[in-house]
Amino acid sequence: MDTIEELTRVLQARRTAEPESSYVAGLYRRGLNRILEKVGEEAVEVILAARDTESSGDRAPLVHEVADLWFHTLVMLVHLDIDPAEVLTELDRRSGTSGLVEKRRREDAAGSEDSGVGP
Amino acid sequence: MDTIEELTRVLQARRTAEPESSYVAGLYRRGLNRILEKVGEEAVEVILAARDTESSGDRAPLVHEVADLWFHTLVMLVHLDIDPAEVLTELDRRSGTSGLVEKRRREDAAGSEDSGVGP
Amino acid sequence: MDTIEELTRVLQARRTAEPESSYVAGLYRRGLNRILEKVGEEAVEVILAARDTESSGDRAPLVHEVADLWFHTLVMLVHLDIDPAEVLTELDRRSGTSGLVEKRRREDAAGSEDSGVGP
Amino acid sequence: MDTIEELTRVLQARRTAEPESSYVAGLYRRGLNRILEKVGEEAVEVILAARDTESSGDRAPLVHEVADLWFHTLVMLVHLDIDPAEVLTELDRRSGTSGLVEKRRREDAAGSEDSGVGP
Repeated sequence: MDTIEELTRVLQARRTAEPESSYVAGLYRRGLNRILEKVGEEAVEVILAARDTESSGDRAPLVHEVADLWFHTLVMLVHLDIDPAEVLTELDRRSGTSGLVEKRRREDAAGSEDSGVGP
Repeated sequence: MDTIEELTRVLQARRTAEPESSYVAGLYRRGLNRILEKVGEEAVEVILAARDTESSGDRAPLVHEVADLWFHTLVMLVHLDIDPAEVLTELDRRSGTSGLVEKRRREDAAGSEDSGVGP
Repeated sequence: MDTIEELTRVLQARRTAEPESSYVAGLYRRGLNRILEKVGEEAVEVILAARDTESSGDRAPLVHEVADLWFHTLVMLVHLDIDPAEVLTELDRRSGTSGLVEKRRREDAAGSEDSGVGP
Repeated sequence: MDTIEELTRVLQARRTAEPESSYVAGLYRRGLNRILEKVGEEAVEVILAARDTESSGDRAPLVHEVADLWFHTLVMLVHLDIDPAEVLTELDRRSGTSGLVEKRRREDAAGSEDSGVGP
Protein backbone atom coordinates (compact mmCIF):
# COMPACT_ATOMS: atom_id res chain seq x y z
CA MET A 1 0.00 0.00 0.00
CA ASP A 2 1.47 3.44 -0.79
CA THR A 3 1.96 6.40 1.56
CA ILE A 4 -1.21 8.39 0.89
CA GLU A 5 -3.37 5.24 0.81
CA GLU A 6 -1.95 3.97 4.11
CA LEU A 7 -2.31 7.34 5.84
CA THR A 8 -5.87 7.66 4.53
CA ARG A 9 -6.72 4.28 6.06
CA VAL A 10 -5.34 5.43 9.43
CA LEU A 11 -7.20 8.77 9.26
CA GLN A 12 -10.46 7.04 8.38
CA ALA A 13 -10.07 4.72 11.36
CA ARG A 14 -9.74 7.76 13.63
CA ARG A 15 -13.22 8.97 12.71
CA THR A 16 -14.79 6.58 15.19
CA ALA A 17 -12.14 7.09 17.90
CA GLU A 18 -12.76 9.04 21.10
CA PRO A 19 -11.83 12.76 20.68
CA GLU A 20 -9.41 12.53 23.62
CA SER A 21 -7.68 9.46 22.20
CA SER A 22 -5.72 11.17 19.42
CA TYR A 23 -4.86 14.52 17.89
CA VAL A 24 -6.83 13.76 14.72
CA ALA A 25 -9.91 12.46 16.52
CA GLY A 26 -9.86 15.74 18.47
CA LEU A 27 -9.71 17.73 15.21
CA TYR A 28 -12.71 15.87 13.75
CA ARG A 29 -14.68 16.66 16.89
CA ARG A 30 -13.80 20.37 16.77
CA GLY A 31 -15.17 20.46 13.24
CA LEU A 32 -14.46 21.84 9.78
CA ASN A 33 -13.52 25.42 10.76
CA ARG A 34 -10.81 24.20 13.16
CA ILE A 35 -9.44 21.82 10.48
CA LEU A 36 -9.40 24.67 7.92
CA GLU A 37 -7.61 26.96 10.39
CA LYS A 38 -4.91 24.29 10.61
CA VAL A 39 -4.70 24.04 6.78
CA GLY A 40 -4.25 27.83 6.62
CA GLU A 41 -1.66 27.90 9.42
CA GLU A 42 0.37 25.12 7.81
CA ALA A 43 0.27 26.88 4.43
CA VAL A 44 1.75 30.01 6.04
CA GLU A 45 4.41 27.91 7.79
CA VAL A 46 5.32 26.33 4.42
CA ILE A 47 5.70 29.82 2.89
CA LEU A 48 7.95 31.05 5.73
CA ALA A 49 9.98 27.81 5.78
CA ALA A 50 10.53 28.04 2.00
CA ARG A 51 11.98 31.53 2.42
CA ASP A 52 14.19 30.23 5.26
CA THR A 53 15.36 27.30 3.11
CA GLU A 54 16.24 29.66 0.27
CA SER A 55 18.51 31.73 2.52
CA SER A 56 19.91 29.02 4.84
CA GLY A 57 20.06 25.98 2.56
CA ASP A 58 18.56 23.89 5.38
CA ARG A 59 15.82 21.76 3.84
CA ALA A 60 14.57 19.58 6.70
CA PRO A 61 12.18 22.18 8.24
CA LEU A 62 10.49 22.76 4.88
CA VAL A 63 10.01 19.03 4.27
CA HIS A 64 8.43 18.81 7.73
CA GLU A 65 6.08 21.77 7.07
CA VAL A 66 4.95 20.42 3.68
CA ALA A 67 4.20 17.08 5.38
CA ASP A 68 2.12 18.99 7.98
CA LEU A 69 0.21 20.79 5.19
CA TRP A 70 -0.53 17.63 3.20
CA PHE A 71 -1.44 15.79 6.42
CA HIS A 72 -4.04 18.39 7.38
CA THR A 73 -5.52 18.48 3.84
CA LEU A 74 -5.92 14.70 4.15
CA VAL A 75 -7.68 15.15 7.51
CA MET A 76 -9.97 17.70 5.83
CA LEU A 77 -10.81 15.37 2.93
CA VAL A 78 -11.55 12.42 5.22
CA HIS A 79 -13.67 14.66 7.48
CA LEU A 80 -15.74 15.58 4.40
CA ASP A 81 -15.99 11.93 3.30
CA ILE A 82 -13.81 12.41 0.22
CA ASP A 83 -11.28 9.75 -0.73
CA PRO A 84 -7.84 11.39 -1.25
CA ALA A 85 -7.35 8.93 -4.13
CA GLU A 86 -9.57 11.31 -6.14
CA VAL A 87 -6.90 14.01 -5.76
CA LEU A 88 -4.22 11.62 -7.01
CA THR A 89 -6.41 10.77 -10.01
CA GLU A 90 -6.67 14.49 -10.79
CA LEU A 91 -2.87 14.85 -10.49
CA ASP A 92 -2.38 11.81 -12.76
CA ARG A 93 -4.55 13.55 -15.33
CA ARG A 94 -2.21 16.54 -15.22
CA SER A 95 0.93 14.46 -15.72
CA GLY A 96 -0.84 12.73 -18.58
CA THR A 97 -2.12 15.89 -20.23
CA SER A 98 1.31 17.30 -19.91
CA GLY A 99 2.81 14.26 -21.61
CA LEU A 100 0.44 14.68 -24.54
CA VAL A 101 1.08 18.41 -24.72
CA GLU A 102 4.81 17.67 -24.75
CA LYS A 103 4.40 15.08 -27.49
CA ARG A 104 2.39 17.45 -29.67
CA ARG A 105 5.00 20.12 -29.05
CA ARG A 106 7.83 17.89 -30.19
CA GLU A 107 5.87 16.99 -33.32
CA ASP A 108 4.91 20.42 -34.54
CA ALA A 109 7.47 22.53 -32.66
CA ALA A 110 4.78 25.16 -32.32
CA GLY A 111 5.78 26.32 -28.85
CA SER A 112 2.46 28.08 -28.31
CA GLU A 113 1.57 29.02 -24.76
CA ASP A 114 0.09 26.37 -22.47
CA SER A 115 -2.88 27.97 -20.76
CA GLY A 116 -3.74 24.93 -18.63
CA VAL A 117 -2.52 24.39 -15.10
CA GLY A 118 -0.71 21.22 -16.15
CA PRO A 119 3.08 21.36 -16.26
CA MET B 1 5.71 4.67 -11.10
CA ASP B 2 3.23 6.28 -8.72
CA THR B 3 1.45 9.64 -9.07
CA ILE B 4 3.76 11.90 -7.04
CA GLU B 5 6.88 10.26 -8.48
CA GLU B 6 5.64 10.64 -12.07
CA LEU B 7 4.57 14.26 -11.58
CA THR B 8 7.92 15.04 -9.91
CA ARG B 9 9.74 13.66 -12.96
CA VAL B 10 7.67 15.89 -15.26
CA LEU B 11 8.22 18.98 -13.05
CA GLN B 12 11.97 18.34 -12.91
CA ALA B 13 12.11 18.10 -16.71
CA ARG B 14 10.43 21.54 -16.93
CA ARG B 15 13.35 23.19 -15.12
CA THR B 16 15.38 23.32 -18.30
CA ALA B 17 12.45 24.27 -20.55
CA GLU B 18 11.98 27.73 -22.03
CA PRO B 19 9.83 29.95 -19.72
CA GLU B 20 7.35 30.55 -22.57
CA SER B 21 6.99 26.84 -23.27
CA SER B 22 4.87 25.87 -20.26
CA TYR B 23 3.04 27.24 -17.23
CA VAL B 24 5.49 25.60 -14.83
CA ALA B 25 8.62 26.74 -16.69
CA GLY B 26 7.19 30.26 -16.47
CA LEU B 27 6.69 29.90 -12.70
CA TYR B 28 10.30 28.75 -12.19
CA ARG B 29 11.51 31.80 -14.10
CA ARG B 30 9.36 34.21 -12.05
CA GLY B 31 11.00 32.80 -8.93
CA LEU B 32 10.23 31.67 -5.40
CA ASN B 33 7.98 34.57 -4.32
CA ARG B 34 5.64 34.00 -7.28
CA ILE B 35 5.50 30.26 -6.55
CA LEU B 36 4.75 30.96 -2.87
CA GLU B 37 2.00 33.42 -3.82
CA LYS B 38 0.42 30.57 -5.80
CA VAL B 39 0.73 28.18 -2.80
CA GLY B 40 -1.01 30.79 -0.64
CA GLU B 41 -3.76 31.46 -3.19
CA GLU B 42 -4.46 27.76 -3.63
CA ALA B 43 -4.62 27.24 0.15
CA VAL B 44 -7.29 29.96 0.38
CA GLU B 45 -9.21 28.40 -2.52
CA VAL B 46 -9.11 25.03 -0.73
CA ILE B 47 -10.53 26.65 2.42
CA LEU B 48 -13.36 28.35 0.53
CA ALA B 49 -14.11 25.22 -1.54
CA ALA B 50 -14.27 23.11 1.64
CA ARG B 51 -16.90 25.46 3.06
CA ASP B 52 -18.81 25.26 -0.25
CA THR B 53 -18.61 21.45 -0.23
CA GLU B 54 -19.94 21.34 3.33
CA SER B 55 -23.04 23.32 2.36
CA SER B 56 -23.63 22.08 -1.21
CA GLY B 57 -22.43 18.48 -1.04
CA ASP B 58 -20.63 19.01 -4.36
CA ARG B 59 -17.16 17.55 -3.96
CA ALA B 60 -15.53 17.93 -7.38
CA PRO B 61 -14.42 21.57 -6.94
CA LEU B 62 -12.67 20.76 -3.65
CA VAL B 63 -10.83 17.78 -5.19
CA HIS B 64 -9.69 20.12 -7.96
CA GLU B 65 -8.48 22.80 -5.52
CA VAL B 66 -6.57 20.30 -3.36
CA ALA B 67 -4.87 18.99 -6.52
CA ASP B 68 -3.91 22.62 -7.35
CA LEU B 69 -2.47 23.11 -3.86
CA TRP B 70 -0.44 19.88 -3.88
CA PHE B 71 0.68 20.62 -7.45
CA HIS B 72 2.08 24.04 -6.51
CA THR B 73 3.81 22.67 -3.37
CA LEU B 74 5.49 20.14 -5.68
CA VAL B 75 6.59 22.97 -8.01
CA MET B 76 8.01 24.77 -4.94
CA LEU B 77 9.93 21.70 -3.76
CA VAL B 78 11.41 21.01 -7.20
CA HIS B 79 12.32 24.71 -7.58
CA LEU B 80 14.27 24.43 -4.29
CA ASP B 81 15.91 21.17 -5.39
CA ILE B 82 14.06 19.05 -2.83
CA ASP B 83 12.78 15.61 -3.82
CA PRO B 84 9.06 15.34 -2.87
CA ALA B 85 9.82 11.73 -1.93
CA GLU B 86 11.24 13.17 1.30
CA VAL B 87 7.78 14.47 2.20
CA LEU B 88 6.28 11.02 1.59
CA THR B 89 8.96 9.50 3.85
CA GLU B 90 7.97 11.94 6.58
CA LEU B 91 4.28 11.04 6.10
CA ASP B 92 5.17 7.32 6.23
CA ARG B 93 6.86 7.96 9.55
CA ARG B 94 3.59 9.44 10.85
CA SER B 95 1.49 6.49 9.73
CA GLY B 96 4.10 4.24 11.32
CA THR B 97 4.32 6.15 14.57
CA SER B 98 0.62 6.18 14.63
CA GLY B 99 0.52 2.42 14.11
CA LEU B 100 2.83 1.91 17.08
CA VAL B 101 0.88 4.36 19.17
CA GLU B 102 -2.29 2.48 18.28
CA LYS B 103 -0.71 -0.84 19.13
CA ARG B 104 0.47 0.43 22.51
CA ARG B 105 -2.96 1.87 23.10
CA ARG B 106 -4.69 -1.40 22.38
CA GLU B 107 -2.28 -3.17 24.72
CA ASP B 108 -2.59 -0.93 27.76
CA ALA B 109 -5.92 0.75 26.97
CA ALA B 110 -4.54 3.86 28.62
CA GLY B 111 -6.19 6.37 26.27
CA SER B 112 -3.78 9.12 27.34
CA GLU B 113 -3.55 12.17 25.12
CA ASP B 114 -1.39 12.00 21.99
CA SER B 115 0.72 15.14 21.92
CA GLY B 116 2.36 14.40 18.55
CA VAL B 117 1.01 15.57 15.21
CA GLY B 118 0.63 11.95 14.07
CA PRO B 119 -2.92 10.64 13.87
CA MET C 1 -13.16 63.08 8.09
CA ASP C 2 -10.38 60.55 8.77
CA THR C 3 -8.88 58.03 6.34
CA ILE C 4 -10.93 54.93 7.16
CA GLU C 5 -14.17 56.92 7.38
CA GLU C 6 -13.56 58.62 4.02
CA LEU C 7 -12.62 55.37 2.28
CA THR C 8 -15.66 53.65 3.78
CA ARG C 9 -17.88 56.38 2.33
CA VAL C 10 -16.33 55.85 -1.12
CA LEU C 11 -16.67 52.04 -0.89
CA GLN C 12 -20.30 52.31 0.19
CA ALA C 13 -21.05 54.56 -2.79
CA ARG C 14 -19.62 51.90 -5.12
CA ARG C 15 -22.27 49.37 -4.03
CA THR C 16 -24.79 50.89 -6.41
CA ALA C 17 -22.31 51.48 -9.25
CA GLU C 18 -22.25 49.41 -12.43
CA PRO C 19 -19.87 46.41 -12.09
CA GLU C 20 -17.92 47.57 -15.14
CA SER C 21 -17.51 51.09 -13.79
CA SER C 22 -14.89 50.36 -11.13
CA TYR C 23 -12.64 47.65 -9.70
CA VAL C 24 -14.59 47.59 -6.42
CA ALA C 25 -18.03 47.50 -8.03
CA GLY C 26 -16.75 44.50 -10.02
CA LEU C 27 -15.63 42.77 -6.80
CA TYR C 28 -19.05 43.28 -5.16
CA ARG C 29 -20.69 41.72 -8.21
CA ARG C 30 -18.37 38.70 -8.17
CA GLY C 31 -19.41 38.09 -4.58
CA LEU C 32 -18.00 37.15 -1.18
CA ASN C 33 -15.76 34.24 -2.24
CA ARG C 34 -13.91 36.44 -4.75
CA ILE C 35 -13.48 39.20 -2.14
CA LEU C 36 -12.16 36.63 0.38
CA GLU C 37 -9.72 35.23 -2.19
CA LYS C 38 -8.36 38.78 -2.54
CA VAL C 39 -8.06 39.13 1.28
CA GLY C 40 -6.10 35.86 1.36
CA GLU C 41 -3.87 36.81 -1.57
CA GLU C 42 -3.05 40.20 -0.04
CA ALA C 43 -2.24 38.58 3.33
CA VAL C 44 0.29 36.31 1.59
CA GLU C 45 1.77 39.28 -0.28
CA VAL C 46 2.13 41.13 3.06
CA ILE C 47 3.99 38.12 4.53
CA LEU C 48 6.38 37.88 1.57
CA ALA C 49 6.92 41.66 1.45
CA ALA C 50 7.72 41.72 5.19
CA ARG C 51 10.44 39.11 4.64
CA ASP C 52 11.77 41.17 1.71
CA THR C 53 11.76 44.34 3.83
CA GLU C 54 13.67 42.57 6.59
CA SER C 55 16.46 41.59 4.20
CA SER C 56 16.50 44.59 1.83
CA GLY C 57 15.54 47.45 4.14
CA ASP C 58 13.18 48.73 1.42
CA ARG C 59 9.89 49.57 3.12
CA ALA C 60 7.71 51.02 0.37
CA PRO C 61 6.51 47.67 -1.07
CA LEU C 62 5.37 46.48 2.38
CA VAL C 63 3.46 49.73 3.04
CA HIS C 64 1.74 49.22 -0.32
CA GLU C 65 0.83 45.58 0.43
CA VAL C 66 -0.57 46.40 3.89
CA ALA C 67 -2.69 49.12 2.28
CA ASP C 68 -3.95 46.51 -0.22
CA LEU C 69 -4.82 44.12 2.64
CA TRP C 70 -6.67 46.72 4.71
CA PHE C 71 -8.40 48.00 1.57
CA HIS C 72 -9.79 44.56 0.72
CA THR C 73 -10.91 43.90 4.32
CA LEU C 74 -12.82 47.21 4.07
CA VAL C 75 -14.42 46.03 0.81
CA MET C 76 -15.39 42.79 2.59
CA LEU C 77 -16.96 44.62 5.55
CA VAL C 78 -18.94 46.99 3.33
CA HIS C 79 -20.09 44.06 1.17
CA LEU C 80 -21.44 42.40 4.35
CA ASP C 81 -23.09 45.66 5.49
CA ILE C 82 -20.74 46.14 8.44
CA ASP C 83 -19.46 49.61 9.30
CA PRO C 84 -15.63 49.50 9.60
CA ALA C 85 -16.04 51.98 12.48
CA GLU C 86 -16.99 48.93 14.57
CA VAL C 87 -13.48 47.54 14.03
CA LEU C 88 -11.94 50.83 15.15
CA THR C 89 -14.12 50.74 18.28
CA GLU C 90 -12.81 47.24 19.04
CA LEU C 91 -9.20 48.45 18.52
CA ASP C 92 -9.87 51.45 20.81
CA ARG C 93 -11.03 49.03 23.46
CA ARG C 94 -7.68 47.21 23.18
CA SER C 95 -5.62 50.39 23.54
CA GLY C 96 -7.79 51.27 26.52
CA THR C 97 -7.67 47.82 28.11
CA SER C 98 -3.98 47.86 27.59
CA GLY C 99 -3.71 51.22 29.30
CA LEU C 100 -5.65 49.91 32.29
CA VAL C 101 -3.62 46.70 32.37
CA GLU C 102 -0.46 48.79 32.31
CA LYS C 103 -1.75 51.02 35.09
CA ARG C 104 -2.67 48.06 37.27
CA ARG C 105 0.73 46.58 36.58
CA ARG C 106 2.54 49.69 37.67
CA GLU C 107 0.44 49.75 40.83
CA ASP C 108 0.93 46.21 42.02
CA ALA C 109 4.12 45.36 40.11
CA ALA C 110 2.77 41.84 39.81
CA GLY C 111 4.10 41.20 36.28
CA SER C 112 1.78 38.23 35.79
CA GLU C 113 1.20 37.09 32.23
CA ASP C 114 -1.32 38.98 30.12
CA SER C 115 -3.52 36.37 28.49
CA GLY C 116 -5.58 38.84 26.45
CA VAL C 117 -4.77 39.88 22.91
CA GLY C 118 -4.39 43.53 23.98
CA PRO C 119 -0.89 44.93 23.96
CA MET D 1 -5.51 61.23 18.83
CA ASP D 2 -7.22 58.74 16.53
CA THR D 3 -7.46 54.95 16.93
CA ILE D 4 -4.55 53.81 14.76
CA GLU D 5 -2.30 56.58 16.06
CA GLU D 6 -3.07 55.79 19.71
CA LEU D 7 -2.59 52.03 19.22
CA THR D 8 0.68 52.66 17.38
CA ARG D 9 1.93 54.68 20.32
CA VAL D 10 1.07 51.82 22.70
CA LEU D 11 2.72 49.21 20.44
CA GLN D 12 5.88 51.32 20.11
CA ALA D 13 6.11 51.62 23.90
CA ARG D 14 5.98 47.80 24.18
CA ARG D 15 9.22 47.47 22.19
CA THR D 16 11.28 48.19 25.25
CA ALA D 17 9.11 46.16 27.65
CA GLU D 18 10.16 42.82 29.11
CA PRO D 19 8.98 39.89 26.89
CA GLU D 20 7.11 38.36 29.84
CA SER D 21 5.32 41.60 30.63
CA SER D 22 2.84 41.60 27.74
CA TYR D 23 1.57 39.57 24.79
CA VAL D 24 3.01 42.04 22.28
CA ALA D 25 6.43 42.30 23.95
CA GLY D 26 6.54 38.50 23.78
CA LEU D 27 5.75 38.59 20.04
CA TYR D 28 8.54 41.11 19.36
CA ARG D 29 10.98 38.84 21.16
CA ARG D 30 9.90 35.76 19.20
CA GLY D 31 10.65 37.67 16.01
CA LEU D 32 9.29 38.35 12.54
CA ASN D 33 8.37 34.78 11.54
CA ARG D 34 6.18 34.37 14.63
CA ILE D 35 4.49 37.74 13.96
CA LEU D 36 3.88 36.75 10.31
CA GLU D 37 2.42 33.38 11.38
CA LYS D 38 -0.06 35.37 13.48
CA VAL D 39 -0.90 37.65 10.50
CA GLY D 40 -1.56 34.54 8.39
CA GLU D 41 -3.65 32.83 11.09
CA GLU D 42 -5.77 35.93 11.60
CA ALA D 43 -6.34 36.31 7.85
CA VAL D 44 -7.68 32.74 7.73
CA GLU D 45 -9.90 33.42 10.74
CA VAL D 46 -11.28 36.51 8.99
CA ILE D 47 -12.09 34.42 5.90
CA LEU D 48 -13.88 31.73 7.93
CA ALA D 49 -15.71 34.31 10.07
CA ALA D 50 -16.89 36.15 6.93
CA ARG D 51 -18.43 32.93 5.63
CA ASP D 52 -20.06 32.36 9.03
CA THR D 53 -21.42 35.93 9.05
CA GLU D 54 -22.87 35.45 5.58
CA SER D 55 -24.85 32.40 6.69
CA SER D 56 -25.69 33.32 10.29
CA GLY D 57 -26.08 37.09 10.10
CA ASP D 58 -24.04 37.39 13.31
CA ARG D 59 -21.48 40.13 12.74
CA ALA D 60 -19.66 40.47 16.08
CA PRO D 61 -17.20 37.57 15.54
CA LEU D 62 -16.11 39.01 12.16
CA VAL D 63 -15.56 42.49 13.63
CA HIS D 64 -13.41 40.86 16.31
CA GLU D 65 -11.35 38.87 13.77
CA VAL D 66 -10.74 41.91 11.54
CA ALA D 67 -9.55 43.82 14.63
CA ASP D 68 -7.17 40.90 15.36
CA LEU D 69 -5.85 41.00 11.79
CA TRP D 70 -5.28 44.77 11.74
CA PHE D 71 -3.78 44.60 15.23
CA HIS D 72 -1.17 42.03 14.17
CA THR D 73 -0.31 43.95 10.98
CA LEU D 74 0.33 46.98 13.23
CA VAL D 75 2.59 44.86 15.45
CA MET D 76 4.45 43.75 12.30
CA LEU D 77 4.90 47.34 11.04
CA VAL D 78 6.15 48.59 14.41
CA HIS D 79 8.51 45.59 14.70
CA LEU D 80 9.99 46.60 11.31
CA ASP D 81 10.23 50.27 12.36
CA ILE D 82 7.54 51.43 9.92
CA ASP D 83 5.02 54.05 11.01
CA PRO D 84 1.47 52.78 10.27
CA ALA D 85 0.63 56.38 9.32
CA GLU D 86 2.35 55.60 6.00
CA VAL D 87 -0.34 53.00 5.29
CA LEU D 88 -3.06 55.55 6.01
CA THR D 89 -1.37 58.00 3.63
CA GLU D 90 -1.41 55.32 0.93
CA LEU D 91 -5.12 54.66 1.61
CA ASP D 92 -5.83 58.42 1.46
CA ARG D 93 -4.21 58.46 -1.95
CA ARG D 94 -6.63 55.77 -3.10
CA SER D 95 -9.72 57.62 -1.85
CA GLY D 96 -8.35 60.70 -3.59
CA THR D 97 -7.48 59.02 -6.86
CA SER D 98 -10.86 57.46 -6.83
CA GLY D 99 -12.49 60.83 -6.35
CA LEU D 100 -10.64 62.20 -9.36
CA VAL D 101 -11.44 59.14 -11.43
CA GLU D 102 -15.08 59.56 -10.50
CA LYS D 103 -15.02 63.26 -11.39
CA ARG D 104 -13.45 62.57 -14.78
CA ARG D 105 -16.01 59.88 -15.36
CA ARG D 106 -18.90 62.18 -14.63
CA GLU D 107 -17.45 64.78 -16.99
CA ASP D 108 -16.82 62.64 -20.04
CA ALA D 109 -19.14 59.72 -19.25
CA ALA D 110 -16.60 57.48 -20.86
CA GLY D 111 -17.06 54.53 -18.49
CA SER D 112 -13.71 53.04 -19.48
CA GLU D 113 -12.33 50.34 -17.22
CA ASP D 114 -10.46 51.39 -14.07
CA SER D 115 -7.28 49.31 -14.00
CA GLY D 116 -6.02 50.68 -10.68
CA VAL D 117 -6.72 49.12 -7.31
CA GLY D 118 -8.50 52.27 -6.17
CA PRO D 119 -12.25 52.04 -5.77
